[in-house]
Amino acid sequence: MEAFEKTSRNQVKRIPKRGHYDRPAIYAILDDACVGHVGFALDGQPFVIPTIYGRDGDTLYLHGATTSRMLVALQKGLPVCVTVTHIDGLVLARSAFHHSMNYRSAVIFGTARLVEGAEKNKALEVISEQILPGRWEEVRGPNAKELKATSVVALEIEQASAKIRTGPPGDDKEDYELPIWAGVLPINQSYGAPQEDPLSRKELDLPASVLQVSER
Amino acid sequence: MEAFEKTSRNQVKRIPKRGHYDRPAIYAILDDACVGHVGFALDGQPFVIPTIYGRDGDTLYLHGATTSRMLVALQKGLPVCVTVTHIDGLVLARSAFHHSMNYRSAVIFGTARLVEGAEKNKALEVISEQILPGRWEEVRGPNAKELKATSVVALEIEQASAKIRTGPPGDDKEDYELPIWAGVLPINQSYGAPQEDPLSRKELDLPASVLQVSER
Repeated sequence: MEAFEKTSRNQVKRIPKRGHYDRPAIYAILDDACVGHVGFALDGQPFVIPTIYGRDGDTLYLHGATTSRMLVALQKGLPVCVTVTHIDGLVLARSAFHHSMNYRSAVIFGTARLVEGAEKNKALEVISEQILPGRWEEVRGPNAKELKATSVVALEIEQASAKIRTGPPGDDKEDYELPIWAGVLPINQSYGAPQEDPLSRKELDLPASVLQVSER
Repeated sequence: MEAFEKTSRNQVKRIPKRGHYDRPAIYAILDDACVGHVGFALDGQPFVIPTIYGRDGDTLYLHGATTSRMLVALQKGLPVCVTVTHIDGLVLARSAFHHSMNYRSAVIFGTARLVEGAEKNKALEVISEQILPGRWEEVRGPNAKELKATSVVALEIEQASAKIRTGPPGDDKEDYELPIWAGVLPINQSYGAPQEDPLSRKELDLPASVLQVSER
């Protein structure tokens, strides 16, 4: 689990003390989410598309319709950037200037390749497990027609960095005397109560996958 | 408030019924967030950077350190894509294939220009109000040194589209008979209890800006 090399591409330039290059820090951010923002450029025009992913080691799997513009573009081996961001709180300082956010973000660089055969099934399971562990085993798996309609690409992570801010605001020394409330307003994300499909034919117990996260 | 023209750049190609091009739909998504993912390309290499923004009419304001690589690049008039995404729930179908997410995303295309003078102050206020309405009036405003250390760019929204999914899963007809629980697991985002800065010199009441959102 060595760290990624720091180069001009992945280096955290602004406030370098917030930068991280080691796999555990970066992968913890990736593993705590399942949607990233995928960036690619066609003739200099950038596109940023929110996309579900699954991580397996140093590989990110992305999937979508075979006809997806993004997946067609990525298969050409274009350079790709995938960014995953958690917003953990508003940092409210005494000065406008020192307002900030608490956040954890990971920026991934790589190139994509089309995934086929046995790896394709595995990749779809990895993506499903990233979203809701255990769900893959509970549902009807993909048939040949569905597999044909789905493209999967693998992004080998060539370079990456993370940027993390935590803790209270940091104000200028003289501003601590001002009668202005300062602190952090945390932002939480949670699952609400499961909503059964109104078209369900019979009443079924909640599955283990849902119970596991609903009881958190 | 006419709609944005639909072209090959901003058209929602996959599942077109989820696509929206009218300003109210797109701006509602932008106004319900304050962090977007900004994409730009340097020599074909895409970068996707999470960034705070504020919207004023058809303009998105972004700010950061004068030395920020992103802001320096954007000022050159490169094409920019900013994407804002809300994940509202996991859509759990009976088949792996029909699993989905409920989401609202907006993809914005434009080019940026450097903001200076009176517009710069106004833009910083717009950004602050987007994050936490009312905070700007409560805090010490930026001084000349801080303004000099901050760059603001304006992205005039040239084109945009939104993509929205809501509601229960849509399974294949025959799968509704399967004894597999299906439905939606909502994802909620909320503010936690405000955490006062431990370095505060005296006890102060919570400000109106914080109370307003904490009482939601």
